[in-house]
Amino acid sequence: MKKTFADRLVEAVKAKGNPICVGLDPRLNQIPSYIKRKALEGKDVSPMAAAADSILEFNKGIIDAVADIVPVVKPQIAFYEIFGYEGVRAYEETLKYAKEKGLITIADAKRNDIGSTATAYAQAFLGEVEMFEDENEVISPIFDADSITLNAYLGIDGIKPFITEAQNYDKGMFILVKTSNPSSGDLQDLEMKDDSKIYEIMGYLVDSWGANEISDSGYSSVGAVVGATYPEQAATLRKIMPNSIFLVPGYGAQGGGAKDVAPCFNDDGLGAVVNSSRGIIFAYEKLDGFDETSYAEAAAQAAKNMRDDLASIF
Amino acid sequence: MKKTFADRLVEAVKAKGNPICVGLDPRLNQIPSYIKRKALEGKDVSPMAAAADSILEFNKGIIDAVADIVPVVKPQIAFYEIFGYEGVRAYEETLKYAKEKGLITIADAKRNDIGSTATAYAQAFLGEVEMFEDENEVISPIFDADSITLNAYLGIDGIKPFITEAQNYDKGMFILVKTSNPSSGDLQDLEMKDDSKIYEIMGYLVDSWGANEISDSGYSSVGAVVGATYPEQAATLRKIMPNSIFLVPGYGAQGGGAKDVAPCFNDDGLGAVVNSSRGIIFAYEKLDGFDETSYAEAAAQAAKNMRDDLASIF
Repeated sequence: MKKTFADRLVEAVKAKGNPICVGLDPRLNQIPSYIKRKALEGKDVSPMAAAADSILEFNKGIIDAVADIVPVVKPQIAFYEIFGYEGVRAYEETLKYAKEKGLITIADAKRNDIGSTATAYAQAFLGEVEMFEDENEVISPIFDADSITLNAYLGIDGIKPFITEAQNYDKGMFILVKTSNPSSGDLQDLEMKDDSKIYEIMGYLVDSWGANEISDSGYSSVGAVVGATYPEQAATLRKIMPNSIFLVPGYGAQGGGAKDVAPCFNDDGLGAVVNSSRGIIFAYEKLDGFDETSYAEAAAQAAKNMRDDLASIF
Repeated sequence: MKKTFADRLVEAVKAKGNPICVGLDPRLNQIPSYIKRKALEGKDVSPMAAAADSILEFNKGIIDAVADIVPVVKPQIAFYEIFGYEGVRAYEETLKYAKEKGLITIADAKRNDIGSTATAYAQAFLGEVEMFEDENEVISPIFDADSITLNAYLGIDGIKPFITEAQNYDKGMFILVKTSNPSSGDLQDLEMKDDSKIYEIMGYLVDSWGANEISDSGYSSVGAVVGATYPEQAATLRKIMPNSIFLVPGYGAQGGGAKDVAPCFNDDGLGAVVNSSRGIIFAYEKLDGFDETSYAEAAAQAAKNMRDDLASIF
């Protein structure tokens, strides 16, 4: 029997011995200047193409450095879209390169829409796209991610097409439940008639939407985004969604530490992947003994430091 | 004094004498075959590039046909992203072409994220992007839209960067409040402690976030998405957000008619733009006397029919 996304993710976490997700958020002004100079050398290159080439080159260095250490990477598409279609090309190639290196990928795109529009996103990110019906040509796939982040404000209509593609192609998703940002409570913390909070309601929805997607690992391919910056809420959500894998942003640069992410895990030590972006990919700016020419080695060191830090909670 | 987005939109609606937004959701299998054949003729063209060229060519025909009739177009990015970076190229060029033809554009992207990530989206869609600081090079702008649709599940953190860019570049936004889809009530209709519904809470948030953005026209550049399929809720929301312009999906193919969208307007006959996608761009499939070679003329006719239908409510 084929392994589901949840099975593959749990297996990768066990194999690497840690639940780290490296966020590939390549801010151009923090990318080593020698990479940017090289990208700008081609005489016909547009600034956008040079920017895209710079972030792709940078990402490849990070991926090579962390592929043996961590199980998951998560490129955030905003940092690619900012360079238009050239940036999106770099996004596609980053996902492809990470897959080649054996990493599980999360397309952090927070897509949300309804009906046939959601289907278009789901096919592009998780499935296959049928084109030019006369030739029966199928392009498979466009973005080639293992999973995607989603926003479920629109209800199940916006999620169902992703579940369908996930079933067909052994892919998965992480739905925003309680986000890590300071104002996440503007809406998410408001109280319902029965005293529950909106983020709890979203947790119950995610739990029910994923109930039929639980596989051998005991986990569902419908996961949840739960911020490390709200450990009490995470503890509540862990009980509401016992079978969902949590994608946990907010560790490191956003202020969350090992003890803050602890409530996101189940007693089996599984059930969460913890993301760090800036703290790993731009570690060369902070860690002693590194400079921009050793940014990849610095990232590897930062990933190992994070692994040791997280080990303290098990 | 420079005109805000809301001022420009109100002016365009008055000039054209209708509040129609044409949704540019170009499904490849409904695009006339002669357009696709031409795009496939180039011998080195990839299927994705040919698909992207097909939708761009199709869009140009629609834009040319409706530019004198309607004030606004809204390309939905999912139908472009489905062809990867080539599709995103067609998206950029569609926005550019619509602007050249004097149309106001809404990038239907439903973006949502926090902090610097939201800033990256805001700069890409509404503002300017700074690149390669050594050369002081500013690329302005990437997507060149007048406005964007947003999802505010993450609270003000995810909206503020767009308000900043909107202020700087006279742009605007439409935040999802009550969406048109059947399951929009899964979350949006739930009851809060004080008997209000979540969509009403979101309406109050949008009203407050846009309060400082109200300009000469009396409208704010922070608008709301309110589906035509829920007229009672729209009437409530019209009172909660008197100064917000509503972007109203759900007319036509989704089942909403003129009387359903009526509650979205203020007594001044303003305050809403009503979107139709399939009903206009693929009108050649439905209207008598047209075929795929006259798809643009059919779109013009469908836009005029919709204009006459909407006129009945004022």
